[in-house]
Amino acid sequence: MHAAVSLDEGRGALAIIDQTLLPLREELIYLKSPEDIRDAIYELKVRGAPAIGAAAAIGAYLAADAVAKKITADAVAGNIAVDAVAGNIPADAVAGNIPADAVAKKIPEKALSTPAFESFLMQFRAAIDLLNSARPTAVNLSWALKRMERVAVKYKNEPLAAVVSRLKDECLAILDEDARVCEAIGKHGLELLTPGMGLLTHCNAGRLATASQYGTATAPIYLGHERGYGFKVYCGETRPLLQGARLTAYELCSSGVDATLFCDNMTSSLMSAGLIDAVLVGCDRVAANGDTANKIGTSYIAIAAKHYEIPFYVCAPSPTVDLACDSGESIVIEQRQAKEVTDMWYANRVAPHGIKVFNPSFDVTDAGLISAIITENGIARPPYKESLAALIPRT
Amino acid sequence: MHAAVSLDEGRGALAIIDQTLLPLREELIYLKSPEDIRDAIYELKVRGAPAIGAAAAIGAYLAADAVAKKITADAVAGNIAVDAVAGNIPADAVAGNIPADAVAKKIPEKALSTPAFESFLMQFRAAIDLLNSARPTAVNLSWALKRMERVAVKYKNEPLAAVVSRLKDECLAILDEDARVCEAIGKHGLELLTPGMGLLTHCNAGRLATASQYGTATAPIYLGHERGYGFKVYCGETRPLLQGARLTAYELCSSGVDATLFCDNMTSSLMSAGLIDAVLVGCDRVAANGDTANKIGTSYIAIAAKHYEIPFYVCAPSPTVDLACDSGESIVIEQRQAKEVTDMWYANRVAPHGIKVFNPSFDVTDAGLISAIITENGIARPPYKESLAALIPRT
Repeated sequence: MHAAVSLDEGRGALAIIDQTLLPLREELIYLKSPEDIRDAIYELKVRGAPAIGAAAAIGAYLAADAVAKKITADAVAGNIAVDAVAGNIPADAVAGNIPADAVAKKIPEKALSTPAFESFLMQFRAAIDLLNSARPTAVNLSWALKRMERVAVKYKNEPLAAVVSRLKDECLAILDEDARVCEAIGKHGLELLTPGMGLLTHCNAGRLATASQYGTATAPIYLGHERGYGFKVYCGETRPLLQGARLTAYELCSSGVDATLFCDNMTSSLMSAGLIDAVLVGCDRVAANGDTANKIGTSYIAIAAKHYEIPFYVCAPSPTVDLACDSGESIVIEQRQAKEVTDMWYANRVAPHGIKVFNPSFDVTDAGLISAIITENGIARPPYKESLAALIPRT
Repeated sequence: MHAAVSLDEGRGALAIIDQTLLPLREELIYLKSPEDIRDAIYELKVRGAPAIGAAAAIGAYLAADAVAKKITADAVAGNIAVDAVAGNIPADAVAGNIPADAVAKKIPEKALSTPAFESFLMQFRAAIDLLNSARPTAVNLSWALKRMERVAVKYKNEPLAAVVSRLKDECLAILDEDARVCEAIGKHGLELLTPGMGLLTHCNAGRLATASQYGTATAPIYLGHERGYGFKVYCGETRPLLQGARLTAYELCSSGVDATLFCDNMTSSLMSAGLIDAVLVGCDRVAANGDTANKIGTSYIAIAAKHYEIPFYVCAPSPTVDLACDSGESIVIEQRQAKEVTDMWYANRVAPHGIKVFNPSFDVTDAGLISAIITENGIARPPYKESLAALIPRT
């Protein structure tokens, strides 16, 4: 499997696996402009909090590179008037609003540095804002972009080419750190698990969601798999966009992990059947008090896990922990299009071949969870043994 | 909307809405043989515990009619040898295994009665067994078929034509009772509700699931709607076969009820947002202790309802209450094909036009439900305010 997110230096592009095509085909696409990268994030071609952060960081670097090249080229070509460059309003000049005959002479790049940097920064920030608008919930997106912006500002006294080079180093550092963070999460998480356990995971917090071969929630799974732990992994399909069926099932099958797919509403049945020993999920943002925003359905799993006394673990790279956010109440939750629910995923087949499936048609609701049973003969209340027998004629 | 299940006397057929075509088109299909009716039940062309019971009862009557007509015709046509008819092995005779030249003479129907009834009953029971094999979980199927069988046995001394007529009356009685039962459930259920409430329902326990215009879980909803209660109804899509999206959303929209569709895993979000005041579900079998088998996902909803202190009501026609079944542990749960999960429903559009949709991308898991948060810096345990702050560098 390719890396979910990487910088293709030869192409000068962000390379991502187009995750909307999985599990039917694994195809790399190459994106250059902030618009295309924002769209790819919004359309979930690349998704998963750490992967989005990494993709946006690469996007920011590519935007910086393009802006710097344009400013430098314009200056060298004499398209920017000296007084415009020297003054505080270089945007018009860079945008080509100043006619060629207003150009006095060519200027060496170094002389440009201060006002050119302002122009650069303004355009770089516009690209960052654009990238940041793709999705509101994951903190990694804004975290990675803020990191990139901070580097640009820090090196404002260097020539643009040097600033761009720092930005490239920074986005590669973000990718490297992600890989190390995931492996560390895997090691810590594995301490909580024992061989042979049944593990439930939701959505995709796997290698497709990160710039790492381990992923976050899957890191203890892959690490345990390498060590022969023989986990049985249950992945929820994760409606509406089926990241569990399309992505996690694909990843796990590709890696030879024992994986079973189930529909989200079967969670309670799996737990009730004793098949789940622990839940491992990723996260998009963790508040200072531990409240965790993650793919829709996560809190529902946690409630069932508590009910069945099954440990529920969140795998959280530290950039995902937002200590500035007091509790879950202040986390903005993205509402998405109705069409995702009313229309099925376009591919008819949504899961990889070879995946096992758990598909019971019914489940049993424990009487202790039922407030009343309404029959045509009246309303039965607990204890039901007596109230039902009183209402229902024995046949 | 047509009735979900009815007897078309002119056609001598069971008439059902083919529910696999909903919500795209409402089309009646007509079925005569037990094989076709069993297949229609298995393939969910007709589904819902009361509707299955009603359809099977009609199927049993139609089978009885066909068997009786064949026996009588064979006897009248002289295809059955006198000694075969008089003896205890009339099956071969009826199956035509006795050659025409073995036939001695024509025999009037009355003379046939006892051995013919045995032949009739054997074939009738074969048809009942076939129908009963369609789905194991819903008690109504076997309940309705047992009722039909009991009628046949009770009138064994009457001519076959009279037995068949009794069976017709019985299947129509089952349909009538279903309609009265649903209305009574609606009245009792409405006592538990107040105007303006947000109500959550699962799968389809509506008019499409019964032989009634009220349904079971929807009976309080429709009755309240008639009385201007202004309920806001939330229907879960119910993967894998999307009965909520395809059927309940269709029913509610057709009836002008304020209805919103959501994916099953959004249940906790809806409850957490305070949108749900009560849950109303149907059931396939209720054990004597109140444990309730219903569409997969029901127990999961009940766990969340308990967590959020929302009343969870089961609407149960008394034939669905199985006092002979002590608890949920002895209820057989049907496992269905993997393909239902791995492949999406064939229709691209799965919900009716005009349905509202709830589609948040994420939810927030309360810190109190999380056992540990695994970061690359170590494992945080509750209380998280302290443990996270100790592990995560403040940026």
